[in-house]
Amino acid sequence: MTDRGDIDVVGIGNALVDVLCHENEGFLLSHGLVKGTMQLINEAGARRLYEAMGPGVEMSGGSAANTIVGVASFGGRAHYVGKVRNDQLGDVFAHDLRSTGVEYDTPPATEGPPTGRCLIMVTPDAQRTMGTFLGASVSLSPDDIDADLIARGKILYLEGYLFDPPRAQDAFRVAASIAHERGRVVSLTLSDPFCVDRHRHAFLELVKGYVDVLFANEAEICSLYEVHDFDAALQHARQHCQIAALTRSARGSVIVGGDEVHVIDAHPIEALVDTTGAGDLYAAGFLFGLSRGLDLASCGRLGSVAAAEVISHVGARPQVPLAKLMDTALGSTR
Amino acid sequence: MTDRGDIDVVGIGNALVDVLCHENEGFLLSHGLVKGTMQLINEAGARRLYEAMGPGVEMSGGSAANTIVGVASFGGRAHYVGKVRNDQLGDVFAHDLRSTGVEYDTPPATEGPPTGRCLIMVTPDAQRTMGTFLGASVSLSPDDIDADLIARGKILYLEGYLFDPPRAQDAFRVAASIAHERGRVVSLTLSDPFCVDRHRHAFLELVKGYVDVLFANEAEICSLYEVHDFDAALQHARQHCQIAALTRSARGSVIVGGDEVHVIDAHPIEALVDTTGAGDLYAAGFLFGLSRGLDLASCGRLGSVAAAEVISHVGARPQVPLAKLMDTALGSTR
Repeated sequence: MTDRGDIDVVGIGNALVDVLCHENEGFLLSHGLVKGTMQLINEAGARRLYEAMGPGVEMSGGSAANTIVGVASFGGRAHYVGKVRNDQLGDVFAHDLRSTGVEYDTPPATEGPPTGRCLIMVTPDAQRTMGTFLGASVSLSPDDIDADLIARGKILYLEGYLFDPPRAQDAFRVAASIAHERGRVVSLTLSDPFCVDRHRHAFLELVKGYVDVLFANEAEICSLYEVHDFDAALQHARQHCQIAALTRSARGSVIVGGDEVHVIDAHPIEALVDTTGAGDLYAAGFLFGLSRGLDLASCGRLGSVAAAEVISHVGARPQVPLAKLMDTALGSTR
Repeated sequence: MTDRGDIDVVGIGNALVDVLCHENEGFLLSHGLVKGTMQLINEAGARRLYEAMGPGVEMSGGSAANTIVGVASFGGRAHYVGKVRNDQLGDVFAHDLRSTGVEYDTPPATEGPPTGRCLIMVTPDAQRTMGTFLGASVSLSPDDIDADLIARGKILYLEGYLFDPPRAQDAFRVAASIAHERGRVVSLTLSDPFCVDRHRHAFLELVKGYVDVLFANEAEICSLYEVHDFDAALQHARQHCQIAALTRSARGSVIVGGDEVHVIDAHPIEALVDTTGAGDLYAAGFLFGLSRGLDLASCGRLGSVAAAEVISHVGARPQVPLAKLMDTALGSTR
């Protein structure tokens, strides 16, 4: 029987299997892809892009799912909600979540499009560019939101990508309302600058009314406030967000909350291999710290060390137990 | 239209998708697996083992398929014959072959078991241990053997694993007969010491009657001749084989053919990461060299450099164009 107690983090997102390959920048250009961003593609577009891609490696992905795996890897109790189909890639997705200790019981779709996938091209500069076919994840609906589960999560974590499929957006709103009413922490990642462009008004409303912790990288927060300068975006975020954790790649992160401002350096790495999952794992460390009552600077340090681990290898999920890195991250403050 | 000219190497094998994960030796023990070997498992056994395994990475595999990809990576014209199902993993398998330049047109099965998979556990010593669910590959049959195609291949390459599924064994025999009658080179890898145990008599007959080039590692050649000492096996091989390329992991390889004997060192590597595919890629280099008329020692050096590349990373297929490594391999002899 499942333990009915509190869950550290409940995450909701588009359930995707990543297909990673190495391509050069000319490949991105010839397929109309903008480096560093995510572009939605339909099934035919996914087929065309896949046919043009070199040999790939398949690994479970999905932004919020990566984060939830990271929370579990730190030793947190973590639950994921997202929709696959009852097909081979759906089985792979569920296996990889459960085998890392994540609770996952969203019933797979038994009809409609196959399990969604994210075609990821890693360029020689280690940057990742994505073409996403949402597949079965579009069928996530409010019916998949268990009010009791959401109420048991200390923190609800939502990915901005959920706004793309209309029914998933409804599920997002239902879950956010429940968590908000129960006094739980509601957190959101803006996911992608193009995603922010598509849903700017809704995101601004959410940030004002519902979101307690906002995650965004520099391009995303600038897009949200339609400014071209990080500091300008920072001033907006200080006004509108309860807590905002703003990531800046190699330049580290800036965390604002009430009167607090923390500037956290990026955790040093030996070699940058693949940036896929950097933001997802930063959020994992931050949320795990928050669930354990750590101060904001410590949350940021846990985020940095988790991001550093994931960009040191190919793939968006940690390859070592993140719990082992906690002392490295927090040592100087203990 | 496909070019109807000669093909350097035509390979036939069990078409499998690899699922790789890292496990310790206790895991192998508790699942009755013998380190370094391949064990056949049925669909239920595969499900049990998969459920117990940690998160995995999916990559196209299959012993002969890895070899054929290696031949193409050296710049050879290479064709693969093997059976998947018309499912997601079957699509992945076909995509990964074709995107590396391999010709592949075996029609997928439209009924029966799903695409076969090989569950690979890599232990901390970088050794790989495999549980194989043959799946759709058991449906490869003599109907899939195109006599004209086999006749066009300068070298036919067969994996010993094909002897496990009965109809594939028939396909193996048909293809070997055609190539033999047309005066083409017939090559065979013994694949695995347990596989040799299961089919020793047939393999001995084949080696005497049909096989021009035999590939085996130390455990396999000792199993074939039921001896416990490499040198004893070597003496048998010199008597029975036209050409035998015997691999010995870090101790390099020994090649015998007629009066010739060559002892080739292993190519140096920076770090041993995962031995999966070492034998497959050794065969790739050797066969590519043979197809280009190189002497046996040079063939062995190409095998060594290809094996060194594939054991330096996770996964059984090369991650750099092997053609770029040819000068490194042959430099001292040119």
